[in-house]
Amino acid sequence: MVDSPNRTNPKTDIDVVGIGNAIVDVISHESESFLEAHNLVKDSMALIDTDVAVNLYNEMSPTVQSSGGSAANTMAGVSSLGGKAAYIGKIRDDHLGEFFTHDINAAGVHFSVNPASEGLPTARSMIIVTPDGSRTMNTYLGTSTNLLKDDLDIKLLESAQILYCEGYIWDIETTKETIRSAIAIARGANRTISFTLSDSFCVSRHKEEWIELIEEQVDILFGNEDEIKELSGCNTLSEAAQWIQGKVTVACLTLAERGSIIVTAEEIIGIAAKPVSQVIDSTGAGDLYAAGFLFGYARGLDLKVCGELASIAAAEIIAHTGARPLTPLKNLIESELSN
Amino acid sequence: MVDSPNRTNPKTDIDVVGIGNAIVDVISHESESFLEAHNLVKDSMALIDTDVAVNLYNEMSPTVQSSGGSAANTMAGVSSLGGKAAYIGKIRDDHLGEFFTHDINAAGVHFSVNPASEGLPTARSMIIVTPDGSRTMNTYLGTSTNLLKDDLDIKLLESAQILYCEGYIWDIETTKETIRSAIAIARGANRTISFTLSDSFCVSRHKEEWIELIEEQVDILFGNEDEIKELSGCNTLSEAAQWIQGKVTVACLTLAERGSIIVTAEEIIGIAAKPVSQVIDSTGAGDLYAAGFLFGYARGLDLKVCGELASIAAAEIIAHTGARPLTPLKNLIESELSN
Repeated sequence: MVDSPNRTNPKTDIDVVGIGNAIVDVISHESESFLEAHNLVKDSMALIDTDVAVNLYNEMSPTVQSSGGSAANTMAGVSSLGGKAAYIGKIRDDHLGEFFTHDINAAGVHFSVNPASEGLPTARSMIIVTPDGSRTMNTYLGTSTNLLKDDLDIKLLESAQILYCEGYIWDIETTKETIRSAIAIARGANRTISFTLSDSFCVSRHKEEWIELIEEQVDILFGNEDEIKELSGCNTLSEAAQWIQGKVTVACLTLAERGSIIVTAEEIIGIAAKPVSQVIDSTGAGDLYAAGFLFGYARGLDLKVCGELASIAAAEIIAHTGARPLTPLKNLIESELSN
Repeated sequence: MVDSPNRTNPKTDIDVVGIGNAIVDVISHESESFLEAHNLVKDSMALIDTDVAVNLYNEMSPTVQSSGGSAANTMAGVSSLGGKAAYIGKIRDDHLGEFFTHDINAAGVHFSVNPASEGLPTARSMIIVTPDGSRTMNTYLGTSTNLLKDDLDIKLLESAQILYCEGYIWDIETTKETIRSAIAIARGANRTISFTLSDSFCVSRHKEEWIELIEEQVDILFGNEDEIKELSGCNTLSEAAQWIQGKVTVACLTLAERGSIIVTAEEIIGIAAKPVSQVIDSTGAGDLYAAGFLFGYARGLDLKVCGELASIAAAEIIAHTGARPLTPLKNLIESELSN
């Protein structure tokens, strides 16, 4: 936790800059038995190599391709809510890279990292959606692992109100160094640092390092129940919530259909999930929750309102396939903001 | 209309072989004003060149990419219903071509046309979905225009119960010749010829030629209200239905939420639309209607049952984004078939 609360920082044009793996999602709908047949751990993200990627793709049902990447989804959400967002991530100059660039631009997100002209292809994640709407991700990182310090826009990092970091990016040594540099630059300008735990397996891979990082450098933490239990080593949500209290300024713990809790040193605020008629695909639910919260936080709104905006954004995304909003989120939050 | 009804032909493994433009759909959701700003005619299909394709793509909102092509969607539907389908269409060996091939294979459709290794890229259609669920298509045909007679699998065409032809393919001289050859091969083997009018503007481009083709060589005709009015020159649906009676064995006229009518020389059968809770995207509705009807027809079912299967398949497709079924259609028609 940073000593001084950053909410009194000078306002700038950019509300949030996100940094993460730039990924195109390739989504198919499969039965539960498909997961078993391919030894996939439901609801988790696995990193896969080229061979596994090719084999899995060959066995998937008809697919829908949609731009993804956790932090990129979040930035698209911030923009859709009416905020100013920017994104840092690495693509190749191939068809998937063009597709990714089109969508991040079309979402109104500032994106100016040069695409690689050689080497590995643009990253893609093969996402298996089961009938209950849960998603199991199998990610081939490709050129996203080549995001280097030179790709960082220092002025952008110094000027954005909030830096948002993807836990996923910790899996590769080069991008981990890049994100540590980004955090140092943003902190040097006294900006707010936010971080998402991304995935419980990702947490278990980096637990010790992350606890230190979070205590020393993170203001706002996002995670779901499995992730915070894994990080804290606690068996229950309430123990985990108690454990995180005071380590960060705000921890947002998401609980799927049970809503979320917002934990500060002083209090715990319960936020209801916004009901949806049918969960079609939960891809992006956590990403869009973060978008809603960060948008509200950057605009200085009450934490409870931030949580409600988060719930609205998450509800829009799970009602359709794909992790980017179909409805401009700013239209959905008008009534919240006018209260 | 062919003299002898073909329903007594020897049964073979393949129920339907479809021939058409192999296209990847790039779908975005836009307001009505987007159509006006780009001079797009709502609910129609326009052919566009490279420059227009690039400009339009740059201005579209975030997109979802999904395999399409009218006849390919229909064949995916036939397969999803439990039928045996095959497809003939031309792609390039590029990313979009791989994506198309994956999906047609994953749909269980036989597809063995060799991809082009040079020349134009795989075709793509930029589809604008407006809030009412209607779709406006802007198609760059790319290499799909290079489907040649040499690409036709003669044994396949001779053995499939039904040949299904896309009207769209008439727009290019080379593919028109190819489809005329395919029809001649299938007729030579005394197979059933089915044809879809595809689009009212497409009808107006080829009206005279099509009337002759339909009277002489087509057994089953598909079209919506605008298309059959355009073809017949009639002002009302009932006049158009009367006009088509006797020209083909069966004409299926689709009427969106008003269902469809099945017209034979002797009778007109009304089929109700299957209600859906929300129309998300009507892309593929006509294609899947044809799939349901053709599957039933190939299996020798009563025309009314064929129409009901068509309604069920169309209803599944309009309840989500994309023109390929997400739910195995054979699960949805079990109760119809057991009656």
